[in-house]
Amino acid sequence: MSGWIVIAGLGPGAEELVTPEVRAALARATDVVGYIPYVARVAERPGLTLHASDNRVELDRARHALEMARAGGRVVVVSSGDPGVFAMASAVFEAVEVGPPAWRDLDIRVLPGITAMLAAAARAGAPLGHDFCAINLSDNLKPWALIEKRLRLAAQADFAMAFYNPRSRARPEGFTRALEVLRAECADDRPVIFARAVSTPEETLRVVPLPQAAPDMADMRTVVLVGSSRTRIIARDGTPIVYTPRFAPE
Amino acid sequence: MSGWIVIAGLGPGAEELVTPEVRAALARATDVVGYIPYVARVAERPGLTLHASDNRVELDRARHALEMARAGGRVVVVSSGDPGVFAMASAVFEAVEVGPPAWRDLDIRVLPGITAMLAAAARAGAPLGHDFCAINLSDNLKPWALIEKRLRLAAQADFAMAFYNPRSRARPEGFTRALEVLRAECADDRPVIFARAVSTPEETLRVVPLPQAAPDMADMRTVVLVGSSRTRIIARDGTPIVYTPRFAPE
Repeated sequence: MSGWIVIAGLGPGAEELVTPEVRAALARATDVVGYIPYVARVAERPGLTLHASDNRVELDRARHALEMARAGGRVVVVSSGDPGVFAMASAVFEAVEVGPPAWRDLDIRVLPGITAMLAAAARAGAPLGHDFCAINLSDNLKPWALIEKRLRLAAQADFAMAFYNPRSRARPEGFTRALEVLRAECADDRPVIFARAVSTPEETLRVVPLPQAAPDMADMRTVVLVGSSRTRIIARDGTPIVYTPRFAPE
Repeated sequence: MSGWIVIAGLGPGAEELVTPEVRAALARATDVVGYIPYVARVAERPGLTLHASDNRVELDRARHALEMARAGGRVVVVSSGDPGVFAMASAVFEAVEVGPPAWRDLDIRVLPGITAMLAAAARAGAPLGHDFCAINLSDNLKPWALIEKRLRLAAQADFAMAFYNPRSRARPEGFTRALEVLRAECADDRPVIFARAVSTPEETLRVVPLPQAAPDMADMRTVVLVGSSRTRIIARDGTPIVYTPRFAPE
């Protein structure tokens, strides 16, 4: 009886963005573990047990998955997007590091997925076409001072930026402060893209210059992209194309 | 006769990492355009013309693809990885911006793919599990001073980092200088991951502490990942697990 554990990325929402590799792992699984809305994306079938849990219990969920794999289960931990980008892979390895030594010898694999910023960037054009950074704006697990420091340095480095978890009902003020930092560091023509629920029926895309970016344009289903100083806007009928050129001047 | 153009990401190499969305676009295409080794990944079939071109002719390739779409072709421009990350999407939009106005009204879509850094991170564990940045180390299209500035600021921001195009025969010295910048800014225990040709039969993965990282560990098929100050290594038989925890201390 040899179990395994896979931490798999389901992509941003559309089934046509789930990789065949992830699909194959789900087809072989005995158990699927994850946050309720992600587990809801997995079809029920005989021989498969779905274990849906609430948000903010990532470590408990990880331990449960590891225990089932150790007992011989074929366990898939599902994340939306890519499991290695602000998602379940780190939680599982946090549990492995402090858990029983036998967990280290488990067959553990991470299967990549289409992460939200890349799906959003594709919809907008190619705003992340040059050097960029990804910052989780939630201060649940890190101090706000670190977020603010990273925002300032990222602006000084002239990175394009992607913000995950920009805003929640529990933390309405963080994104407001993030926009203030950006306005202090960046010129007014900097484009800001609000991409919500990309690849789902609820998808919306909005492009505004930095001074017009407002906190209530984002929620927890939104990824926010900010251009670099070199980012261009191509006007046309409908939503403009936003892209960052490959070259930078001397 | 209505053509379209799709800029599609083929992922890092394995067919099981190509999304169904990209597969469907290729099945409907009349023309596939791209760099020789990427076009070679597309199966020939009646009704499909493959247009393979050499490296460093991205703008010519983009214009050719746009002209064919304008003439009614169903054109897929293929990139490895994700087309929006140091790949063909920006080149196509550069061509659109300065091209005939009619190109703006074309049906242009970008289809995301699994980019090299996420495939590499998945193999190593979750080194990009917290805030991170992606930097193209090629100085073909930007001055080295800008690369070095970004490296310094990224280290000061304590981002995990992913480096694309770390080294080529034409530019052997850039990566050497990048490692010098990192050694000046980061502690000696910082893990460096050399991930080559991930998901192909030639895949190799090597994890070394920063002082042992050597320029010849990378080539143009390698993506290099550098941990943040918080990145952890879990020792076990075989390659260790490298991950960055979700939390940062006050």
